[in-house]
Amino acid sequence: MKDRKLLMIPGPIEFEPAVLSALGAPTTSHVAANFIEAFGQALERLRQVFLSAQGQPFVLAGSGTLAMDCAGANLVEPGDRALVVNIGYFSDRFAALLERYGAQVTQVGAAVGGRPALEDVEAALRQAEYKLLTITHVDTSTAVLADVRGLAGLARQYGALVVVDGVCSVAGEELRMDDWGVDLALTASQKAIGVPPGLALLVAGSRALEAFKRRKTPVQNYYADWTHWLPVMQAYEARQAAYFGTPAVNLVWALNASLGLILEEGMPARFERHAALGRASQAAMAALGLKQVPLQPDWAAHTLSAPRYPANIQGPEFLAQVSKAGVTLAGGLHPAIKANYFRIGHMGAATLGDILVTYSAIETALRACGYNVFLPGVGVAAAQAAY
Amino acid sequence: MKDRKLLMIPGPIEFEPAVLSALGAPTTSHVAANFIEAFGQALERLRQVFLSAQGQPFVLAGSGTLAMDCAGANLVEPGDRALVVNIGYFSDRFAALLERYGAQVTQVGAAVGGRPALEDVEAALRQAEYKLLTITHVDTSTAVLADVRGLAGLARQYGALVVVDGVCSVAGEELRMDDWGVDLALTASQKAIGVPPGLALLVAGSRALEAFKRRKTPVQNYYADWTHWLPVMQAYEARQAAYFGTPAVNLVWALNASLGLILEEGMPARFERHAALGRASQAAMAALGLKQVPLQPDWAAHTLSAPRYPANIQGPEFLAQVSKAGVTLAGGLHPAIKANYFRIGHMGAATLGDILVTYSAIETALRACGYNVFLPGVGVAAAQAAY
Repeated sequence: MKDRKLLMIPGPIEFEPAVLSALGAPTTSHVAANFIEAFGQALERLRQVFLSAQGQPFVLAGSGTLAMDCAGANLVEPGDRALVVNIGYFSDRFAALLERYGAQVTQVGAAVGGRPALEDVEAALRQAEYKLLTITHVDTSTAVLADVRGLAGLARQYGALVVVDGVCSVAGEELRMDDWGVDLALTASQKAIGVPPGLALLVAGSRALEAFKRRKTPVQNYYADWTHWLPVMQAYEARQAAYFGTPAVNLVWALNASLGLILEEGMPARFERHAALGRASQAAMAALGLKQVPLQPDWAAHTLSAPRYPANIQGPEFLAQVSKAGVTLAGGLHPAIKANYFRIGHMGAATLGDILVTYSAIETALRACGYNVFLPGVGVAAAQAAY
Repeated sequence: MKDRKLLMIPGPIEFEPAVLSALGAPTTSHVAANFIEAFGQALERLRQVFLSAQGQPFVLAGSGTLAMDCAGANLVEPGDRALVVNIGYFSDRFAALLERYGAQVTQVGAAVGGRPALEDVEAALRQAEYKLLTITHVDTSTAVLADVRGLAGLARQYGALVVVDGVCSVAGEELRMDDWGVDLALTASQKAIGVPPGLALLVAGSRALEAFKRRKTPVQNYYADWTHWLPVMQAYEARQAAYFGTPAVNLVWALNASLGLILEEGMPARFERHAALGRASQAAMAALGLKQVPLQPDWAAHTLSAPRYPANIQGPEFLAQVSKAGVTLAGGLHPAIKANYFRIGHMGAATLGDILVTYSAIETALRACGYNVFLPGVGVAAAQAAY
């Protein structure tokens, strides 16, 4: 770390050295035996990480938005009704994307930092027959955590497919596709999955695949069309080569390395570690008197935190001071409050040590900006105590 | 190279160590100053590599097919007429893709290994008004090289936009966007650009951008829509951060490193080196008595070769023997002749030495398979002499 900063943004994050080594290894053919084995293994491991015994994993070169695009383009036909549970910027994006594919979108939202009540979502589900309901598990713009389990239960009750944007959650927040009745979950490599950016990852359950197979119209998006990718994913998992587009060989190696580490930790332990990182961050914010974007403590994500700046503190100056202290944090993203808060990612390979280093830098920066209503060390002490 | 094979397929290829180091370096934030600088520089350098003084470069996480998708989705509106100059599998793909976006596609084709005459293309251009003409510069399935300069001149004369799929050509085959009147050229990172797979690269000239801006209907593909990416590319080039999807940070570093090496070599020298590699491979095939897929010698690409197997030689056995001799080659791809030929990629960082090692392995494998009508060493000698 000597010559660089600790990267604590909501993705890309700090990656394990073994993952970066796999990424930088000399490239082989995408049909070489060792690559076929790594890709096949990565697909099997994705199923375990998403806790979907029978789901179909897809690994595509692209960003998280491509993963959302894959879900929307393959599941939506013009005129289908979709219900978007809106908790921020990325929920807005899902709504716009679904409309692009011809969906009639209804949204159930809340104030910035809030999330709609289950009753409000159920009221909407009662009013029309929806083909799918989308949930942003953690909105990276607000650090609000949705109640996927509760929402999925409702959607299933009303016959809607449950689509979860898990970009800031999968392999961090607890997410159980089978147990909770999630039909499709997606993420990007650079979040809690722990791989540099460049891979879109999805797991589609049987109901989602059936809906795709029952389509009456072609998928409007050529690249994202599962018609092309399904035989490729099935072939690699059967340890055979197949071609549609050249897979991102090095990123797939890195993915397989990271998935191996994730499963070594085990999903329950991993969820618990992220919960503890979240508690530590919450405790530190409280000790420093920092308000948060999420309107209620139990609506806050465990993979990232979104503290508001104290009065009279300017974001750019504060973030520069944090950087000077050796840590990179992210500014605001939600258009309505962009200048009023900052974001701390704590997922994937992040440790309690990283949280302590981060809040140490935050304490130093707050003081440098003239905010000193706290006793030195209370932030890091609270984090340590709460973990 | 001690523990691995020389990778001589038509992508991914052998990459420069400096490129792999950049890829495996610890990831920074996509809005960090050093990443903004690298991304901005890569965009500027792409313009130089594509020989387009004013074109708009796009760098997206995705495969080469996404680059094709970007071209099709952004330029085509339902009902537009497109003329596809078909020289193989990837021309077929472009036609299917354009149809997905509502184009009325006319194709001018030729027998496998052939390419349509300019007169035939002109006859088609005379019959209807086409919004765009697509050219596969080098079809990776046949190793046939299209006459982009001649075709672009014709298309311009008849007012059609010139779209070049340069996946197996850009930074290898001579391609001059400005001088030849090419309106859009695209490629993938893992070909002659010399970066592991995972990036889709495009440069759109002013006429292509104007056609995009004049659209009356929204782009049917959400992820590929230039509306999202144009401000991002412009911002990074102006050394400012902007966000739509998280860029593939490590791959962009690798891209910038490789583009630096490419421009250090210089485009004319690079085109000439690839021409020499092509000549060497042609000479070796002739010396060994191997027929080729391209029906005329001057229709053969310089970035890859597609020799047919001699009678009684089985592809899988031959390729296994080549691999045993230390080189990885690719089998056939064109559905009509898939089992009858193999493919040798010689682009990017490839050297005369790589060609010699490759033909040495081919000689050994041919003999092991019972084909021995040639004097030992004539293949490598011919390659050496022709380079």
